Amino acid sequence: MRGAVLYAPGDVRVEQRQDPRIEHPTDAVIRLAATCVCGSDLWPYRGVEPVNKPSPMGHEYVGVVEEVGGDVRLVKPGQFVVGSFFASDNTCEICRAGYQSSCVHREPVGALGAQAERLRVPLADGTLVATPEAPPEDLVPGLLAASDVLGTGWFGAVAAEVGPGRTVAVVGDGAVGLLGVLAARQLGAERIIAMSRHADRQKLALHYGATDIVTERGDEGVARIKDLTDGLGAHSVVEAVGTQESMMQAIRATRPGGHVGYVGVAHGVELPGTELFYSHVHLHGGPAPVRRFLPELIDLILERRIDPGLVFDLELPLDQAAEGYRAMDERRAVKTLLRP
Amino acid sequence: MRGAVLYAPGDVRVEQRQDPRIEHPTDAVIRLAATCVCGSDLWPYRGVEPVNKPSPMGHEYVGVVEEVGGDVRLVKPGQFVVGSFFASDNTCEICRAGYQSSCVHREPVGALGAQAERLRVPLADGTLVATPEAPPEDLVPGLLAASDVLGTGWFGAVAAEVGPGRTVAVVGDGAVGLLGVLAARQLGAERIIAMSRHADRQKLALHYGATDIVTERGDEGVARIKDLTDGLGAHSVVEAVGTQESMMQAIRATRPGGHVGYVGVAHGVELPGTELFYSHVHLHGGPAPVRRFLPELIDLILERRIDPGLVFDLELPLDQAAEGYRAMDERRAVKTLLRP
Repeated sequence: MRGAVLYAPGDVRVEQRQDPRIEHPTDAVIRLAATCVCGSDLWPYRGVEPVNKPSPMGHEYVGVVEEVGGDVRLVKPGQFVVGSFFASDNTCEICRAGYQSSCVHREPVGALGAQAERLRVPLADGTLVATPEAPPEDLVPGLLAASDVLGTGWFGAVAAEVGPGRTVAVVGDGAVGLLGVLAARQLGAERIIAMSRHADRQKLALHYGATDIVTERGDEGVARIKDLTDGLGAHSVVEAVGTQESMMQAIRATRPGGHVGYVGVAHGVELPGTELFYSHVHLHGGPAPVRRFLPELIDLILERRIDPGLVFDLELPLDQAAEGYRAMDERRAVKTLLRP
Repeated sequence: MRGAVLYAPGDVRVEQRQDPRIEHPTDAVIRLAATCVCGSDLWPYRGVEPVNKPSPMGHEYVGVVEEVGGDVRLVKPGQFVVGSFFASDNTCEICRAGYQSSCVHREPVGALGAQAERLRVPLADGTLVATPEAPPEDLVPGLLAASDVLGTGWFGAVAAEVGPGRTVAVVGDGAVGLLGVLAARQLGAERIIAMSRHADRQKLALHYGATDIVTERGDEGVARIKDLTDGLGAHSVVEAVGTQESMMQAIRATRPGGHVGYVGVAHGVELPGTELFYSHVHLHGGPAPVRRFLPELIDLILERRIDPGLVFDLELPLDQAAEGYRAMDERRAVKTLLRP
C-alpha cells in the first residue's frame, strides 16, 4: 500500500509501505476513507522534534473495517469506524475514569502511520467506535475531525470547565483552537473570546460561536481579556498551542479560581511555580482522551448539529501529502485532508 | 505593645511596637488570645526569602475584638474571632467564588505582624468569623490552627478532590500536611497515605486518620505509592512542602486523571511542561482561601469533632518567640504556639 513517511524535517514522501495485517487477536485492519495532517505532525516536520529515522506519519483516521483478530467482539468487518490517536482497552481503571489516552495498555497509533491506504488498529474493541451505518460522504471530514482535533478541542473545553454562564478564552486559532470554540458553544458558554490575528480563522471562529475576537498576544492579549472581564480574567481558558508564551498567556488570562484546559502539545514549556501558586488557577490537560467523547461527538455530527469538518480548508490525494504539509507549515491551510 | 520582628535570618526579636489603631472604617483591632509560628515564617528566617528590613512577623491569629471602624457591621467588640492570613472583603466576585485569598481588595495580614499583643485586621467584616460565644480555653489552639494550617491543609484536600472511595497521599509532614490528613479523613477518603520519616509526626498522622505511612521520598516514595495503588498512583495527592522535589513527587504519585492539591508555598519550583502534559493530572492550589472554610471548621472544632490543636507541640510566651522559631527550624517542634 501507499503511505506517507517523514525522512527528515521538510521531507515527506508517499511511498510503498508494507500492508498492515492482524498481528494480535485484538487488532483490526481498516481501509481509510480519509486521513489528515495534524498540527502536531508539524513539530517533527519543522525539526522541533528530532527525526531519527524514516517515520510513517499520521494518527487521525476514519474508514471501513476489513479484518479483525480472533478476540475482537464489538467491531465487525464492513463497519465504518472512527478511532483516536491512542489505542486503548477502554476497560482498565484509567479508561473507566475517562482517561483512555493514558490507558494502562495504550499504544500510540501515530507510530503505525495513518496517512496511508490501510491501518492496523490495536485494541480495536476499545479504540474504535462504529457509526450506525455508512455515513453520507459529506460528513466524512467531520467524523475525521472527531478522531483528533475535535476531540482535543472538546477535551480542552471540558478540562477548562466550560459551562453555562462562563466566559471562555481560547488561545490558538489552529484547528484545535477553532474546535475549542465550537466545543465551548456546545457546552453552553456565555461568552467566547477567540484569540486570533488571521482573518479567515477569525471568520470560522465567529461561525463556530465566538462572541469576541482578540488579536493581541502575550501580555497585551492578557490585558485585553482582563478588559473584557471586569479586570478579573476569563473563567475558562483553552490553551491550544503548546509554547511557553501561549501557556503563560492562558494562565495569566484566567481569573483566580478559574480553569485552564491545555491541549497544545507542550514544547519547551517550564511553568514558574511561584506565579502558578499565586495565580490560583486550576490546570488540567494533556493528550486528549478522545475516546471518552467519541460516541457523543459522532452523534452530534451525524445529526448535523455541529460541522467540525469546516476546519479542512485543503483536500488533496494522499500522494500529494508533501504539499499538504507545506501548506500547513506555511499557514496557507488550517488543516489538510488526505484522500487515500 | 510587644511584638516579634525579624531583623535578619535567624534573628527574631520581641520588642516594643506601635500599638495598632483603626486606620480605615472597615478595620477592627483585636487583642490576641494566641498566635503562632508558621512553616512559611521559616522561609525568611532561614534566609531563603530575603529580609530587607526589620519585619513584623506572624499571620495566624485568634482573639477578642477591642474596637471596630465606623463601617464595620458584622463584627462587634467583645466577640471572639478567627481570621485568616489574607484580609478579604468576602463580597467581590472572586470571594463569592470561594477564592478569598485572591480577593480583589485583599491585604496580607502578615505585613501587619500577628505575633504580637494586638493586631489591626483590615476588612474586618469580610475577614473575621466570630464564635457564638467565648470558646473554652482548651479549644483556643484548635481555633488558632483554623486560621491557617488547618484551613490550608483542608484546601489542599479539597483542591485534590479528596472524597469517598479515594486513595489520598500527603506529601509533607509539617502541620499543614498533618492537617491535610485530618481533612482527608473528614472528607471521607478511603485510604490516606502519609509520607513521613519522623516517628512523632507519623504518630500524629495515624491519629488523624492516616492508614499507611511511607517513609521513602522522591522517586522511591513515588514507587511506594504506585505499589500501594495497583501501579496507578493515588487519586488525590496533597502537596504541603513547596519545593521542586515535593512538587514532582506529588505529580508523579498521582494517577492519570487524578488531582494534585498543592499548598506548600512554592520556592524555586519550575514545572516541566512536557512531563506535566503527559501526566494527565489536575493541578490546583495556591494560598488557601481559609475564609471559605472557616465557618465549617469552627463548628467542627467547637463540636469537638476534630482536634487540629494537637499540631502545637510547643507553647511559649510571646517573649520567647525566638526559641519558638529555633525549635521549628531545628525540627524539635512541629509548630509553636505563642501566648501574648
